[in-house]
Formats: sequence, structure tokens, C-alpha cells
Amino acid sequence: MDSSQFREAAHNAVDEIAQYYDTLAERPVLPDVAPGYLRPLLPSGPPEDGEPWSAIQADIDRVIMPGLTHWQSPKFMAFFPCNSSFPGMLGEMYSGAFNAAAFNWICSPAITELETVVMDWIAKILALPDCFQSAGEGGGIIQGTASEVIVTAVVAARERLVRRRLGDMPEGEERMDKAADLRGKMVAMGSEHAHSSTQKAAIIAGTRFRKVSAPRSEKFSVTGKELRKTIEELKAKGLEPYYFTVTVGSTGTCAVDDLKGVAEVARDYPDVWIHVDAAYAGSALVCPEYQHLCSSIEHFDSFNVNLHKWLLVNFDCSAFFVKRRMDLIDTYSLTPSYLRNQYRESGLVTDYHEWQIPLGRRFRSLKVWFVLRTYGINGLRNFIRGHIKQGEYFNGLLDTRQDIFNVITPAAFALTTFQVNPPKPEAPPSAYTADFTNDAEAQYREETNRLTKEVYEKVNASKEFFLTSTVVCGLYVIRVVCASERSEEKYMKQCFELLVKTAEEVLKGEN
Amino acid sequence: MDSSQFREAAHNAVDEIAQYYDTLAERPVLPDVAPGYLRPLLPSGPPEDGEPWSAIQADIDRVIMPGLTHWQSPKFMAFFPCNSSFPGMLGEMYSGAFNAAAFNWICSPAITELETVVMDWIAKILALPDCFQSAGEGGGIIQGTASEVIVTAVVAARERLVRRRLGDMPEGEERMDKAADLRGKMVAMGSEHAHSSTQKAAIIAGTRFRKVSAPRSEKFSVTGKELRKTIEELKAKGLEPYYFTVTVGSTGTCAVDDLKGVAEVARDYPDVWIHVDAAYAGSALVCPEYQHLCSSIEHFDSFNVNLHKWLLVNFDCSAFFVKRRMDLIDTYSLTPSYLRNQYRESGLVTDYHEWQIPLGRRFRSLKVWFVLRTYGINGLRNFIRGHIKQGEYFNGLLDTRQDIFNVITPAAFALTTFQVNPPKPEAPPSAYTADFTNDAEAQYREETNRLTKEVYEKVNASKEFFLTSTVVCGLYVIRVVCASERSEEKYMKQCFELLVKTAEEVLKGEN
Repeated sequence: MDSSQFREAAHNAVDEIAQYYDTLAERPVLPDVAPGYLRPLLPSGPPEDGEPWSAIQADIDRVIMPGLTHWQSPKFMAFFPCNSSFPGMLGEMYSGAFNAAAFNWICSPAITELETVVMDWIAKILALPDCFQSAGEGGGIIQGTASEVIVTAVVAARERLVRRRLGDMPEGEERMDKAADLRGKMVAMGSEHAHSSTQKAAIIAGTRFRKVSAPRSEKFSVTGKELRKTIEELKAKGLEPYYFTVTVGSTGTCAVDDLKGVAEVARDYPDVWIHVDAAYAGSALVCPEYQHLCSSIEHFDSFNVNLHKWLLVNFDCSAFFVKRRMDLIDTYSLTPSYLRNQYRESGLVTDYHEWQIPLGRRFRSLKVWFVLRTYGINGLRNFIRGHIKQGEYFNGLLDTRQDIFNVITPAAFALTTFQVNPPKPEAPPSAYTADFTNDAEAQYREETNRLTKEVYEKVNASKEFFLTSTVVCGLYVIRVVCASERSEEKYMKQCFELLVKTAEEVLKGEN
Repeated sequence: MDSSQFREAAHNAVDEIAQYYDTLAERPVLPDVAPGYLRPLLPSGPPEDGEPWSAIQADIDRVIMPGLTHWQSPKFMAFFPCNSSFPGMLGEMYSGAFNAAAFNWICSPAITELETVVMDWIAKILALPDCFQSAGEGGGIIQGTASEVIVTAVVAARERLVRRRLGDMPEGEERMDKAADLRGKMVAMGSEHAHSSTQKAAIIAGTRFRKVSAPRSEKFSVTGKELRKTIEELKAKGLEPYYFTVTVGSTGTCAVDDLKGVAEVARDYPDVWIHVDAAYAGSALVCPEYQHLCSSIEHFDSFNVNLHKWLLVNFDCSAFFVKRRMDLIDTYSLTPSYLRNQYRESGLVTDYHEWQIPLGRRFRSLKVWFVLRTYGINGLRNFIRGHIKQGEYFNGLLDTRQDIFNVITPAAFALTTFQVNPPKPEAPPSAYTADFTNDAEAQYREETNRLTKEVYEKVNASKEFFLTSTVVCGLYVIRVVCASERSEEKYMKQCFELLVKTAEEVLKGEN
């Protein structure tokens, strides 16, 4: 393919992509294929000789399109969104063209320097404290996903504790033995509702993991008191708590941990690295009315928000901020001879590979820059506020049918969770709080869970809307998120009507 | 930006990108900017209100272009290449459009299933043994970079050994203590010339690291004998070697370890996970004349090749193959309730997030599919063979001036390394092998290293060509790689002439 063939193919691709976006709402959000659908559509290996683009492009429609889940559809209300945007796509196009494995400054100065600038811009518009800006001892770096960020923080936390405890010991076998003993006692912690990535990161780091309780009575949030209790219990056993993920917007229900209370614990246990995971909800900090949520974060070590979730930057793009970049560099820098150069030695440049696990890096800051400039701060605020309003609208619809639906967590960051009530005319047991104290309540819970699951599965089976479910403190709930770029009230209404219709059918079958 | 504005902007971008590629060879490969050049060109934050695309696009030329290192230039001969291609870019365009965080099958069946199919295709064209195909117990997965692959393998190796040793112990505190003790004794190993990512992975895994010697007398390769000696020494100290990176094409010189000898050691120490890092040179396996290199790999646990280096798939795309996928899943699967669904439970689908560290995944198989089909197997073979020939041509040019240049490692996979001879009329000390035995040799080495470094730095300072240097067994060498997509003999000739001119100037200054 030469550059004129590329022009032709890429112009066609642009038109196809624009047309795909224009017709998203008309497509069923979920594909109608069974596992294994794709392989029979393809030959058993690549061709001996090259094929023309026309043959390849035709296969996008024949092979790929039928198997896509349309994450950009306004009927995608599952998980959290993964919003693309047109400027984000343009960023990816140029990034693909300037294709580079930019692991240090000289690999492409623009790639390193734009990243530093746009991460400072992000810190500024989210009103993060100055300590997370590159001008001081901290700074931001783009990672792929929140799970990568959390592994990076967990391992850095583990090694920071090793350095603090063994700082004065000379390198050698004895130090390695002591470090191994210490790592063997370390415990990472996260809310029982924290994303699974904290537990996975603890496995990767080769340390223990302890869940911190966050019951329904605390709105599924970790309190400072509960964290302190967990730390003290671990210490009493001779273990070393070294890391805690404090969550702003939990995966299940968008619960926000008690940051103020956790900050007080952080002051008493400065060896515990506290990372703020605001993967989804952190984008709401562009709106001043949400910025109080993070008023305590100068007491914590690091913070992340996935710009690819709710801030219109194409996947992948997780913004990771640290208060002291040396906490990362002291763990991740090796700098072998073939990566040394005069620029690095000058101390004037940032070599981001020393802040992270992988070496090579894509040019991801370009799409962030394009999105920030295309929308402007006000455009992003309007975008977030629109979804917040739609979430409240959907919650309001559920409330009009309290005979069928029981909202478990009201609309928070455009996410509402709810259950389907059993078909009994009576109200639920009065003390129904998921802290089950008697058989009647337990039986009611089981029945509610079963019905909710049935309704959930039937709705998804229609393939018209895509919702997800989760279990929080024993409650099976349906999650509906109103935060797709193309989300509109009319789709929330349609989804609600499908939920009502499906629940009525299921409940009818029960009688 | 609406879809018609996107059409216009993206059509312009396509034309700009095509024009960029058409003019690559005319641009200096290295940018003429000083550290910190970019920030003064931008405002201190994003705009309050959105800007038109015309303003943003103009800044690509004003702000970005002057700071780019042109990795796609035929004058880029540094590191290893990071080749883009037009079909690779088209793959990225569609992937950006279908934007999804595809962590499991239902997230987008096409994304999961195309990956399984194209990884099988890659295994087939590289002639990997059947055990690395998905039909058996193994399979391939796309990761971002080789460094991510190696961390993933190292941590899985560590936990595999824990499971093997403690398999029958019940879960609980006692098992955790025993596991911690075991991890504390574990040692990962790699050639002294292995990429730094193995040592970094050992840090991340919280284990020890030991370099295995690979002297010049063995052409910088690890032999089975040397690996066995290292393992036995570690075991004699009560340590537990658990992982070894065997390298096919080392970063410094493209050395290939003794795979046959290592395979014999592997049979005697089945608890040592052996990973074949063929990040760059592995692409040569598309040519049957190179496939003997990996004739022993069925004895090893895993293998990776970066398709983004030498196989025309845009960055990032590292193909990672394992013999037993359960070795990954047993470590990385957690599967919390909100990720469970009927498809996963059926056992018919692959949930790739259970094979890797991050959760979310991009649609990277699309660009692999487009590249394989556009070039065909023969096109890829011709591409590799063209570079091999250019490498030999460049090596031949150096040999025409043995008065100036001393080839240290002859062209291997299009990489040649060499030194600049000191200006003495006499030949170097006869035993000059980098295993320095006397003062005269040591002095000669120092002088050679200093001169070579000076020539290297002067050539790069011209910004016309970009080379890298490295130090192998005490020798400072210049590395020249002839493997850019646009590479041609005429550029190798120009580079050689610049090297001669620069060396002559430097040597003249010495007299």
C-alpha cells in the first residue's frame, strides 16, 4: 500500500466511521453472535500474497461489525462508559502516524513535553492541589488503565517501605534477606467494594491483601475509623500495612470513601501509601460543585482518573498523579547504558519510563490536548452535568414505580442501582438493610436477588440495551449508568419502559 | 465537533499524514529543540470555551512537528525500529472508532475472537510449535510492549512455583507465611546482555535478580553450561531460581543465546520458567531460513515478539505466547461478580484479562489482521530479507575501511556494531578480545571507547542520522540498524560516508 492508496483507503475509512457514529442509536447495542462465531468466517492463516484493501475493508462489515458491542451507543449503560470523541479519534490518528516507542526525551521531545503540560492542565482543571503539578516534586503521567496505575502504585509503595526501613543498610545479601522478610509481612488494603485491581495488584506485588469493611449503613464507604481498625489489627499480628486504595466512585455503586477520615489515619501512618482511585467519578471534578470531594487529597500519595471513561479521551488514557515523583523513580529507574544520553544526564528532562512498569510509550497526550481544546473547560462541565441530570431523571422514573423497583443507591455520578421487589403486596421487612438478622429477611433477600437477576438477564437478552449487575453486601442489584456521549433522556425513558415491561412479565410469572 | 466537522478534519488529517510520509526522508531525523522548548509555546491551561479544529490543527505544525524524532524516517537507525505501516494506521483508525475497554468476551466478541485467530496466524507463520496455538493448552495474547510481557511472565513464574511447592497446603496464614518465605528466596535470571526489562520485572515481582555471564568469546550468548552453573550456584546458597529470559537478538548486538543448550537445562529444572525474548529478531522467523533458531522452543514456557518493531504493526503490539495458558490464569484471574456473565461460565470464551496484568484492553488485533493481509506472507518475507541484505551491505562498507572501523559484531538481523580505531598505525594488541589481560590492552580499550563515543556523538549532533551506542563487555560500540520501512541502500551509504568523514575529523584532531 503506497501513500496514494492509503489516502484513498483512509478517506473511505473516515466516511465509514462518521456514518457508523451517525447510525449508532439504530443498532442493537449487543451483538447477536455465539461464542466461536468468528473463526469459521476466516481462512486458516494469512494469504501467501497481499490482498487489495477493498477485500479487507469489505470484511469489516462481514466479520467484525456483527460481533461488536457498541460502547458508543446511547443504549450502552453497562459497566462505566468508555467514551470516544471525534477530537480523541483525531489524536489517535496523528499518534499512529508519528508512531514511536517514546521511552525517553530524545526519542521524541514533543511526546514527553506535551504529556507533562497536559497532565498539569488536567491537575489544574480538576483542582488537584499544587503538589500534584510537575513544577514541584510531583507530577502526572499517562498510563493505559486504572489497573496498571494501581499495580504501579502498589509496587512503588512496597519498595518505598523497604527503603525507609532498610535505608542505612549496605547493599548485599543481608539487605536482600531483610527486604524479603519485610515484603513477606506486607499487606495492601482496599475497600470491600474497591475495584478488583487492588487485590490483583497485591498478588502481582507478592504481598497480602486485606479488605476493609464498608457496610450499607455507611453507604458502602470506608470510614477513617474502619481503616484505622484494620491497620491496628494487622499491626497487632506483626504484619505491615503498606498501601490503601481510597475510592472516589466505587465500581458497584459509585460510593465515595470518607476521605477526610482516611486523611487523619494517613497522618498517623505515613508509611501506608494512600492512592485515590477516582477512575470514573474523578472526571466530575471538572465541575466546581464536586471539587470538595477531593479537598483532603493533599494528604495522599497518588491519584488517578481514567480520562477514557468520562472525559471523552479515547481509550486508553488513565491520568496518574503522584505527590513525590521520586517515589516512583526510586523503584522503577534502572537506566542501562543504551538508554543514557546527554539530555537525561542534564536533569532537565523527564524520562517517563522511570515512572512506570513498561519501557515504551505511545503518544497519548495528543488526544488529551485535542479534547481539552475542542471542548474547553465549559464544554466538559456541561458534558458531565448533562449526565448527572440524566441520572437523576432515571432515578426519578424508578421512583414513580416503587411498587416494582427499590432504589438501593440513588443516582450518584449518573449511576443508579436498584432491585426488583418480590410480588408480595406487603412491604419488605421493616429492618431490611442487608444486615440480615432473621430468617424472614434472609428469605426476602433471596427472593429479591433471584427476581432482580431474572429481570436483568431478560433485559440484556433483548440486546437493545446493555446493563450490568453486581452484588453489594449480599444484594444483587442492577446498575444503570447514564454517561454515554450520545446519552439522552429519551433513551433512559425507553430503558425504563423495557425494565417495567420485563419486570411485570417476570412478576406475572411468579403469581 | 459533529460528524460532518469530523469528516472534514479527518480528511485533512489523512492528507497531512500522507504528505508527512512522502516527505520523511527530507527531514532531519532528530529535532533541533532544547529541553523545555514546548511549554512556552502553549497557554497555562486549556481554554474556557472550545476552539475550532483549524486552530488546533495549525498547532501540530507549530508546536509538535519541531519536537518530533522521526522514527519512520529512513535515517532512523537507532535502538530498534518501531515501524508503522499504512494498513497498521488504518487498523488504529477503526480501533479508535470502535473504542471499547474490551476486558471480556461480551464486551465485544469480535475483539476477543479476532485476537485469538490472528495470534494463531502469527504462531503459524513464525513456525512456532503447536503447543503455542490456542487449539491446545496454550495460546497467544497481545500485550503493549516486551517489558509488560516480561513482568507478566516473571510474576506468573513466581506464583507457579508457589503453587507447585505449597499446592497441598490449605489457604490461610500458615500458607501465606510459607509462600512469603519462598518468594523471598526466589531469583530471576537473564543474560548480562538481556534487555533491562528482566531486571526491572524482578524488582516488580519483589525477587532477586542474577545476571548470567555471556562473554565475547561466546559471541555475547548465554550457553546452557553457563546457565546451569548459575542455577547450581544459586541452589547451593539455598536460593530458588525460578525464571530465565533466553534472548533471541539481544538489545546491544542481536546475540542469540544457545537455545539448544538452555533447553537441556530446562529439562533438568522444570520449575524454572523459561521465556524466549525475541522482541526484535523474532520477526525474522517469518523467513524459513531463520526458523531453525527456535527449533528448541517447545521446551520453553513462553515466547514474545514485538510486531511493532520489525513486522509493520503500529506501536504498541507485542505478541506473547504461552505453552499453558493456565500458568497465567492461575495467577491473574480473580473474576469478581460484576465481571461474571453466562458466556464466561460456559467455558467457551477467552477472557484475556485473566491472562494479563491490566483489566481493559484495546482492539489491537485489527491492525495485525490488516497488516498480515495487506503484505501476505511473501510480502513480509521480502521486507525482512531486504533489511538483512542492507545490513550486510552496511557491514561491507565498514569492512572497506578497516583502517578506521573495527566491526565488533557483524551484521545480524540488520544490526552491525563497530568501534573506531585509534589513530595509531600499529594493529591493536593481538589478544584484543575485551578480556583484558594487560595494561596495554586496557589502555587501547579506553582510547578506542573514547574515540568511538566522540564519533558517535558528533554524528548524532548533525541530526541527519540517528544512531545509538551501547557498552558490551567493556566495549563502547556504535549500533547501526538498517530496518526502517523506508530504509534503502542509499541512506546506508550516506550514513557510512558521514561516519567516515566524522571519524577522519576526530582522528585528525588526535594527531
